[in-house]
Amino acid sequence: MLAGGKDPLIYEYYENSQPRVEGNLNFGVTIIYPGKVGKEYFLTRGHYHAKEGTAEVYYGLKGVGIMVLQTKKGESKWIQLGQGQVGYVPPFWAHRTVNTGKKKLYVLFAYPSDSGHNYNTIKQKGFSKLVVEERGTPKIVDNPSFT
Amino acid sequence: MLAGGKDPLIYEYYENSQPRVEGNLNFGVTIIYPGKVGKEYFLTRGHYHAKEGTAEVYYGLKGVGIMVLQTKKGESKWIQLGQGQVGYVPPFWAHRTVNTGKKKLYVLFAYPSDSGHNYNTIKQKGFSKLVVEERGTPKIVDNPSFT
Repeated sequence: MLAGGKDPLIYEYYENSQPRVEGNLNFGVTIIYPGKVGKEYFLTRGHYHAKEGTAEVYYGLKGVGIMVLQTKKGESKWIQLGQGQVGYVPPFWAHRTVNTGKKKLYVLFAYPSDSGHNYNTIKQKGFSKLVVEERGTPKIVDNPSFT
Repeated sequence: MLAGGKDPLIYEYYENSQPRVEGNLNFGVTIIYPGKVGKEYFLTRGHYHAKEGTAEVYYGLKGVGIMVLQTKKGESKWIQLGQGQVGYVPPFWAHRTVNTGKKKLYVLFAYPSDSGHNYNTIKQKGFSKLVVEERGTPKIVDNPSFT
């Protein structure tokens, strides 16, 4: 099944969804538009997997970006995720993708079909780190409203 | 863990191997050299997964190629797998990658870390289809020695 969605003006995605059975993989492409809200770059909402012990692999097809990751224990990290760069999301890590460039960022993703998505935890608590533009370049800063 | 291997003169691969636990994903790159043995293009050995109900996602990074797939029930199919093309290997399908171009073929792969590999079935029985060059272009033909 080909599915997709849009967060208007921020990003869109196209996914090939397989049966929600262990051993299958979903895959697709997310396109994040260039832009900022204040100093913060456009990004995806970010999610944990509902089945938390499941990983995800990303590959940057075009553009420049950063992936921000965090755990419920308070750990956080970030990696470059632009054209030609692979990002591995280990099980139990929430993740979001940030477009730090001037053009659209295209990333390929693949993850277990039975992972499911948990967007609510991020919606309620946010990410502990933000990616903002300072003097024309991306900088990782603490999120003052992270709870 | 970064692992890798070579089938001398035919292909090489580089893999980031995660713990062999359900929910994790291994990923890496396979590079298949250009060339032929007789009329048959260079290719990977091909494999089933040892845990047969597990899928794999491929993405062509550079070059031109074909992925050949088959099941133990006798089904077979083939797809283009060159630069910018995604290939999905459903659970229970053996698969091999064939370089039909004049330059190296680079493919990215991701699969569940607990899949394991079964190379023996292919070693003993072969693939039912071969990819050969006829008048300068790739052609799929029946394998006369397939058992």
